[in-house]
Amino acid sequence: MSDLLRPPSAPGHAREAAILLGAVRARAPLTHCITNAVVTGFTANALLAIGAAPAMVDIVGEAGIFAGAASGLLVNLGTPTPEQRRASREAVAGAVAAGTPWVLDPVAIGTLPIRTELARELLDRRPASVRGNASEILALAGRSAGGRGVDATAAPEDAADAAVELARGSGAVVAVSGPVDLITDGERIVRVANGDPLLTRVTGGGCALGAVMAAFLGAAHADVDADAGADALGAVVAAHLAYAVAAERAASRASGPGSFAVSLLDALAELRPEDVESAARIELGEVAA
Amino acid sequence: MSDLLRPPSAPGHAREAAILLGAVRARAPLTHCITNAVVTGFTANALLAIGAAPAMVDIVGEAGIFAGAASGLLVNLGTPTPEQRRASREAVAGAVAAGTPWVLDPVAIGTLPIRTELARELLDRRPASVRGNASEILALAGRSAGGRGVDATAAPEDAADAAVELARGSGAVVAVSGPVDLITDGERIVRVANGDPLLTRVTGGGCALGAVMAAFLGAAHADVDADAGADALGAVVAAHLAYAVAAERAASRASGPGSFAVSLLDALAELRPEDVESAARIELGEVAA
Amino acid sequence: MSDLLRPPSAPGHAREAAILLGAVRARAPLTHCITNAVVTGFTANALLAIGAAPAMVDIVGEAGIFAGAASGLLVNLGTPTPEQRRASREAVAGAVAAGTPWVLDPVAIGTLPIRTELARELLDRRPASVRGNASEILALAGRSAGGRGVDATAAPEDAADAAVELARGSGAVVAVSGPVDLITDGERIVRVANGDPLLTRVTGGGCALGAVMAAFLGAAHADVDADAGADALGAVVAAHLAYAVAAERAASRASGPGSFAVSLLDALAELRPEDVESAARIELGEVAA
Repeated sequence: MSDLLRPPSAPGHAREAAILLGAVRARAPLTHCITNAVVTGFTANALLAIGAAPAMVDIVGEAGIFAGAASGLLVNLGTPTPEQRRASREAVAGAVAAGTPWVLDPVAIGTLPIRTELARELLDRRPASVRGNASEILALAGRSAGGRGVDATAAPEDAADAAVELARGSGAVVAVSGPVDLITDGERIVRVANGDPLLTRVTGGGCALGAVMAAFLGAAHADVDADAGADALGAVVAAHLAYAVAAERAASRASGPGSFAVSLLDALAELRPEDVESAARIELGEVAA
Repeated sequence: MSDLLRPPSAPGHAREAAILLGAVRARAPLTHCITNAVVTGFTANALLAIGAAPAMVDIVGEAGIFAGAASGLLVNLGTPTPEQRRASREAVAGAVAAGTPWVLDPVAIGTLPIRTELARELLDRRPASVRGNASEILALAGRSAGGRGVDATAAPEDAADAAVELARGSGAVVAVSGPVDLITDGERIVRVANGDPLLTRVTGGGCALGAVMAAFLGAAHADVDADAGADALGAVVAAHLAYAVAAERAASRASGPGSFAVSLLDALAELRPEDVESAARIELGEVAA
Repeated sequence: MSDLLRPPSAPGHAREAAILLGAVRARAPLTHCITNAVVTGFTANALLAIGAAPAMVDIVGEAGIFAGAASGLLVNLGTPTPEQRRASREAVAGAVAAGTPWVLDPVAIGTLPIRTELARELLDRRPASVRGNASEILALAGRSAGGRGVDATAAPEDAADAAVELARGSGAVVAVSGPVDLITDGERIVRVANGDPLLTRVTGGGCALGAVMAAFLGAAHADVDADAGADALGAVVAAHLAYAVAAERAASRASGPGSFAVSLLDALAELRPEDVESAARIELGEVAA
């Protein structure tokens, strides 16, 4: 991405998102998901739609092997059974050993102890990115006891300081989902204003984004090896842009949350790189020193 | 609901359903579901569509805590893994301790021993409501060895006596699903004739209703605390009415079971309280002494 | 099927498929599925749409009992938790004891050790049919280390010899999914050219076919008892034809993978036996001695 300034401008991010969407389509990154039982089907369908190759391998004795071979890994803690907890640890170890970028989605941490403890443990294993709503990011940063579950009661801007702190402490790009998504690597802040409120009316609307992030990170990582890749911040912003622009297009055709979910898959499949670039609504910020 | 007679007339139930749908929308009751792996996604989407806040927490060490904080709880025994069985017991204990109303859906009990035993055990923990098809209600009342699984071979009226007996013995409002749903608290019988046969062609068509019942019971319970609530019978009837009226609207736009499931979510989201009231088809009966 | 030549001609297979679709509709075969967490909902909906009665019973202590009572059984190894592994062994034992035909879908075997070992063990328990993509069939026949997961990198024709060998060794009808499906009982080869590439863009597109195979085998098995049934090869071909013809009709109405999945369920429900017969594109072959 030699024609882009570092750090990129807002148009630079939009351009990078378009290029990375093309890379996802060309490479079909094998995206390993350990995710919750509620959203597995929708998540796999979202990955297939955007051009990635999903694989939901959450079995002890297999997850570690698979994470080593995958392009990217998502660990989503929405329904962390004992088998999934062990498989998550195994998969993260495999990903770390192989250099596979991985995404942590600490669903509903804060009040629920099993997943909260696991999220804190996994955070030390250097995820490439962490995604959550404001309540979850606040809880992971130790700022709050969390919301009332999967339901975000805080706004992304309320978690801005916590996100920056979390990014600096963990080395991960932290993404806070909300009406305007806030994404930070601890130094830069990127706000993505695309999207649609219907995403909050569909179960897995956020969880599937975590998987798309793993796919984009996987595609970017492969390109980095070829000296043409985006950094993790760019890949996370790109995933958010692609997903949110598709959501806008889906919303314009939907009659409600049921038809929106269907249209979102159609829109992810038909999304063109130039659509992402032209529709992107991004704002950049610097973190105060 | 001071303007309603007790026991309500059929128009009174329809009115109450409209008011409770408004309460669900206003309160977004946190609805805790422990449900089967086949229908988790559809169930969560149905709850989101109607305005409730779903949370599928079926992990030992978390389920009890969560049930204490939730507005309502569903325990559906469709795929009762060992983890879910333990989590169900924990959640029910948490719900009972906190006064959270909870719904038991004894899927496919009768011939399948693990869930049959668990259903009998949980029935003693005072569910606010029990929902099933006629075969399941007969089996829970000890009247029959059950059908051939999830597939109802008996009609609701065949289970009327069993439902009344079960309601009297357990203190739960018992709802028997079928072409005409039969709902009883052991003294009064309410029959809801709304709905559409396509509900039986979609997996989770009945299971999601159980979750909607938990949401309505949660909303009614909160209003009871505020001296304006419906009783459990009214809340269960209201959930059936809202769900079944939405199903009728969805069926009128559907080309088959796939598009029906999608349209049902859209219809649940756009359903207005006055639609429920005007479309309700209810018949009241008394139980012979 | 006294009016059909044995082995049937291509028109004979198409005719048989039409008759068997009618039998599925008439009998609603109870189809027991132990399948992966990603596709349970879609699989159950596909079975309901085509007229079968699905039951997802994967609990130890229940699976064996249920398999003995079911018309057909699917064991899909996509997410083989410890509970599912034990339940699968129990279900297969129950099916074998009762003479229930069962289908093995060895999802992603090859590189993933837990499921690979289980697939080899279960293959000795005489499945009526085995379904997989070319990589999986090659791996099950011991010819290859497998693909990169659920993602087929080999073509069905690459696995033709392996499929024949596997069929002869196991006694199962082996079906290799791809742009043209290849189905063999070790002596005859049937190629089904119907279908649509969108099936590969929907998660569970292949897994649901495995369940439909179990339903058709169940219906054919019942008819065999009545001296009018198809053999296992005919039933497997019929399931592929019905499913693939429905997929073609769905694709013609779809705007992408999301609407395709919805339309596929609608198309399975409205599919008429004569549609299957007239749209069938089959090629027959003999295995060289």
